[in-house]
Amino acid sequence: MKVLIRELYNKPEDFQNKKVELQGWVRNNRSQKKFGFLDFHDGSHQKTIQLVYEESTENFKKIQKIRVGSSIVVEGELVMTPKMKQPFEVKCTFVELVGDSPEDYPIQPKRHSREFLRTVSHLRPRTNLFQAIFRIRSETKHAIHRFFDQKNFIHVDSPIITGNDGEGAGAMFSVGVPEKPGLPMSNYEKFFSTKTYLTVSGQLQAEAFALSLRNVYTFGPTFRAERSNTQKHASEFWMVEPEMAFCDIECAMKISEEMIKYVVGQVLENCMHEIDLLNAFVDKGLRKKLQELMTHTFKKITHKEAIDILINSKQKFDNEPNHAKDLNSEHEKYLTDVHFKCPVFIKDWPKNIKAFYMRENSDKKTVAAFDLLVSGGVELVGGSQREERMGMLKERMKSMNVKNDGLEWYLDLRKYGGVVHSGFGLGFDRLIMYLTSTENIRDAIPFPRTPNNCKY
Amino acid sequence: MKVLIRELYNKPEDFQNKKVELQGWVRNNRSQKKFGFLDFHDGSHQKTIQLVYEESTENFKKIQKIRVGSSIVVEGELVMTPKMKQPFEVKCTFVELVGDSPEDYPIQPKRHSREFLRTVSHLRPRTNLFQAIFRIRSETKHAIHRFFDQKNFIHVDSPIITGNDGEGAGAMFSVGVPEKPGLPMSNYEKFFSTKTYLTVSGQLQAEAFALSLRNVYTFGPTFRAERSNTQKHASEFWMVEPEMAFCDIECAMKISEEMIKYVVGQVLENCMHEIDLLNAFVDKGLRKKLQELMTHTFKKITHKEAIDILINSKQKFDNEPNHAKDLNSEHEKYLTDVHFKCPVFIKDWPKNIKAFYMRENSDKKTVAAFDLLVSGGVELVGGSQREERMGMLKERMKSMNVKNDGLEWYLDLRKYGGVVHSGFGLGFDRLIMYLTSTENIRDAIPFPRTPNNCKY
Repeated sequence: MKVLIRELYNKPEDFQNKKVELQGWVRNNRSQKKFGFLDFHDGSHQKTIQLVYEESTENFKKIQKIRVGSSIVVEGELVMTPKMKQPFEVKCTFVELVGDSPEDYPIQPKRHSREFLRTVSHLRPRTNLFQAIFRIRSETKHAIHRFFDQKNFIHVDSPIITGNDGEGAGAMFSVGVPEKPGLPMSNYEKFFSTKTYLTVSGQLQAEAFALSLRNVYTFGPTFRAERSNTQKHASEFWMVEPEMAFCDIECAMKISEEMIKYVVGQVLENCMHEIDLLNAFVDKGLRKKLQELMTHTFKKITHKEAIDILINSKQKFDNEPNHAKDLNSEHEKYLTDVHFKCPVFIKDWPKNIKAFYMRENSDKKTVAAFDLLVSGGVELVGGSQREERMGMLKERMKSMNVKNDGLEWYLDLRKYGGVVHSGFGLGFDRLIMYLTSTENIRDAIPFPRTPNNCKY
Repeated sequence: MKVLIRELYNKPEDFQNKKVELQGWVRNNRSQKKFGFLDFHDGSHQKTIQLVYEESTENFKKIQKIRVGSSIVVEGELVMTPKMKQPFEVKCTFVELVGDSPEDYPIQPKRHSREFLRTVSHLRPRTNLFQAIFRIRSETKHAIHRFFDQKNFIHVDSPIITGNDGEGAGAMFSVGVPEKPGLPMSNYEKFFSTKTYLTVSGQLQAEAFALSLRNVYTFGPTFRAERSNTQKHASEFWMVEPEMAFCDIECAMKISEEMIKYVVGQVLENCMHEIDLLNAFVDKGLRKKLQELMTHTFKKITHKEAIDILINSKQKFDNEPNHAKDLNSEHEKYLTDVHFKCPVFIKDWPKNIKAFYMRENSDKKTVAAFDLLVSGGVELVGGSQREERMGMLKERMKSMNVKNDGLEWYLDLRKYGGVVHSGFGLGFDRLIMYLTSTENIRDAIPFPRTPNNCKY
């Protein structure tokens, strides 16, 4: 019977002393004189299983020579091993080499540095570590879709190529077609009859759909052409951007809290073995960090209150807390880890440091924007109530030098039946870093794109 | 009590003769001398509801003047109307205008042409038709994720920006950054230190993950810089690309059939009202078409058999069927609609007209590729078993002028523990066209991108 390792781990007793057939890859081959052990995985489960072969196994000598990374087909009997570390093993009656793996196979059964593994992005998902990270990435994506599906949010694909120049959200990549292959892209405007870029956010287009279908979300790739080579910045990353009509800032914060808690809960529940591994070898506080996030009610303070707390803390910061400025990561860390010891929303930000579409508060100095900070000072979510008042929006665009040109349609959303609406953005890859305690964004993305790096 | 129209339609009896509070938009206002009717939607359900106001309603005169497209807040009592077309209506006690909508509002209560509605992509989701199409699009996306989630497929994000030049899959967009804003992109290579493009497919990268995590899929945007202005081609479109290790062509066809049937079943079940509308006003055969697809076992024939059938049909075709060539859409239509009257897989294609990565059959003339054709001759899925034999793959790359350069990593997947594996691609937007009987791909995508068209 052909089975997957996942099925064996799910219900080993169903297979006890039965013949099983497996297909997969060899992680290690420890051959002794009269027997040997294959550390074996088939991609279906985080854990490997142990295959035992003996002198009596067909092709014993050939099996002894099977190399790390090779693919094999196996027949054998599942035997419970209550006294050993692993709950069961498979005693092989037959092992066939399917695809060999030469001596120079880069993934050997030892610890490789993450820097080295980045140079073999096509092979690193074969390691324990990256199996865990990329399984969690997949489960997180599924959980996000489930969350919004259950809440009847309509999924909308915002466009990737856009004529909108991003209104200062950051440096953008241009998109075009050279007249002939190989020529410089001097005529790159001609394909769409307008300058085109890779999107920095799907929000504006999502707003159009929220004002039609009420609760919507986009989940797509976004891009920044910043030449910053940091651990946290990638040129290409995925964003979840929900947008809700008849929903104010409080409502948006509530939904973002529910979403984060749902997703973390699902990862803890459905990626138990992956979290086990990361908790053991990467961050001994990972599970606790995630469990604690689930149990807290997230705090809410204003930006002014946050700065007051920082000033009154008498703490020495490299950057002085300032009521007119953004928070630095040292400030964020102090708030989450020292002062509140729980996730915290910072809302009502000085309007001069925030985007043109955020709704001005009645104090005329702040906007109804919020950031969600979690342990370590990590900023997981940023959102706002949108400026739905036509006059206020136009005024703000003028004062921030945002041209109407190309945004007439966005103004239309206020002209024709405008309503209170809000939304937020979640950087998906940063969330994966948080969920897996991964320090470098390059290790949270299957094939990361960063300055000077576009292999694959 | 604040409620959504969706909740009212789901269980009207729960709200019978109760006070409800609603927020939404006016589709139409038919005001009489002593009473009036508002056709009202709130984005939460395909159907609108009727609001009744009377002389005794607060602000009666103001309500009479509320214009189409305006947003309102309503209080009233839900009353069952068993003798009328609609099952219930809401008798208003209070109606407040929230956001006005001037006379020039483009979406009036009449039939607009799709051509006109394309010029207001930010407002067209407010129409009945586009509410239906985009709800079905959302449900289809959710259903695809559910299908793979339930089958334990790992979701992988293939990169969007790529250094791989697509190996002849079609014209590609280039990506770059001008040295200074406004300058031509003559130095567009410098950001990544290599020429970069927008991906035409996530398949090659998905293969690397299938050979690690067994069953995986990508679901992302892909791009073609073809200057073809047809109803079926967009410059930006979404693709679902599953890739399975230890899976041959038969296994891939099986999974694609299961996936299509699951998705169609979910749309029929969860988008009943949307299908009702499309079936009534767009294509009277839509529901039947989808239901029939569910009940058939998909046929399987080889490309040679398909050509033989076409030749023997004595049918007059504009393009003569040819054993060495691709099928034309008139051929495909004949096969699905006249000859088989059911969905059909065409497999084992002449190798000279297929991509380099498809596995050569033992006849040395064909490759283990397949297309899935459904009613109307629509090609929903294309897939293949991949060439896992290093020697064969290198030979094929050589004969097709595909350079090893930049694909060494792809060859590595054969060098180190290669296994039989297969996958397929589903054009998501084409599937939406099929599920909604939409003829123009511009009407199946929220903000479509086509040559000379990149508004929004």
